[in-house]
Amino acid sequence: MLKDLILKNRSYRRFYQDKSISEEILSELVDLARLSPSARNAQPLKYVLSNTHEKNSIIFKHLSWAGYLTEWHGPEEGERPSAYIIMVNDTAISSNFFSDNGIASQSILLGAVEKGYGGCIIGSVERLQLQRELEIPAHLKIVQVIALGVPKEEVVIEEFNKDHKYWRDMKEVHHVPKRSLQDIIVKL
Amino acid sequence: MLKDLILKNRSYRRFYQDKSISEEILSELVDLARLSPSARNAQPLKYVLSNTHEKNSIIFKHLSWAGYLTEWHGPEEGERPSAYIIMVNDTAISSNFFSDNGIASQSILLGAVEKGYGGCIIGSVERLQLQRELEIPAHLKIVQVIALGVPKEEVVIEEFNKDHKYWRDMKEVHHVPKRSLQDIIVKL
Repeated sequence: MLKDLILKNRSYRRFYQDKSISEEILSELVDLARLSPSARNAQPLKYVLSNTHEKNSIIFKHLSWAGYLTEWHGPEEGERPSAYIIMVNDTAISSNFFSDNGIASQSILLGAVEKGYGGCIIGSVERLQLQRELEIPAHLKIVQVIALGVPKEEVVIEEFNKDHKYWRDMKEVHHVPKRSLQDIIVKL
Repeated sequence: MLKDLILKNRSYRRFYQDKSISEEILSELVDLARLSPSARNAQPLKYVLSNTHEKNSIIFKHLSWAGYLTEWHGPEEGERPSAYIIMVNDTAISSNFFSDNGIASQSILLGAVEKGYGGCIIGSVERLQLQRELEIPAHLKIVQVIALGVPKEEVVIEEFNKDHKYWRDMKEVHHVPKRSLQDIIVKL
């Protein structure tokens, strides 16, 4: 059932770093994005894959993690993502990708969960520096990064109670408040 | 397998209009969106449901269909969507919903396909007029509309060959060229 996948697909930020993800698997995930809807069918998003220690280290340097956990500066060595998919906008096709990035990310993450992995969409990226360091051609603009790996943390959905900020408890369990269905369905 | 759902999830624009979708089913689809990732966990998207002839007719009037099919002005009476989910941005929470709309749409559409329905994300919406006519409160801004129903058309994926425009053939089959996996994975 899709709902099981969606429930399992939490935003994971700590991983078994030594459990690698093959390039073939990463390509299969991109294929799911490829087959997903694209506004005006323009398909202006492309993907840079990374699953080597060297490239992963470069990418990791340019990411910020979990804004609300102000005392946590991201996963320690050993708990870092074992792979990344960098989503780029091919501006030679179109600079307007509408919500294609969200659609594609959800396909990729659900696919990852189905294969026993998990991940997190990271929007807080030093785009220009990362672009330069990886020598990504200038017409391909970095949109966001999806971090991937075998999750090494528990993430629990909580009832929403005034504040949308997630938190981590003493046992390092990550809690995420979600608005109720009644709260998000508008009765006219 | 998720890939089967993703392959079945084509953008459908003609439906068996008499095959209705219950409010319960629509709520279940919104629940999938609710449980999907939201940037900064802000969750500023809400949902207006429609499955009555009256409300559907109002919504239909304010939509444009399939931009590349210049001689087709949308589905005829009898082939129109039997339901809609209008995605709105609760600006009292946050006016920045990042790519939450794409993420939520993909969850909703994949859920619809799993239940035997199909749909289409429509971005070409007369937002202000629709907002006024449905009396949607001013702080809820229409983002996009998802049309839903039991599909009454065949949609086929084609190899990409220069042009990204979809087309409809003599037998009314809808053809959608998708870029190849080699074309969208960037080799650095």
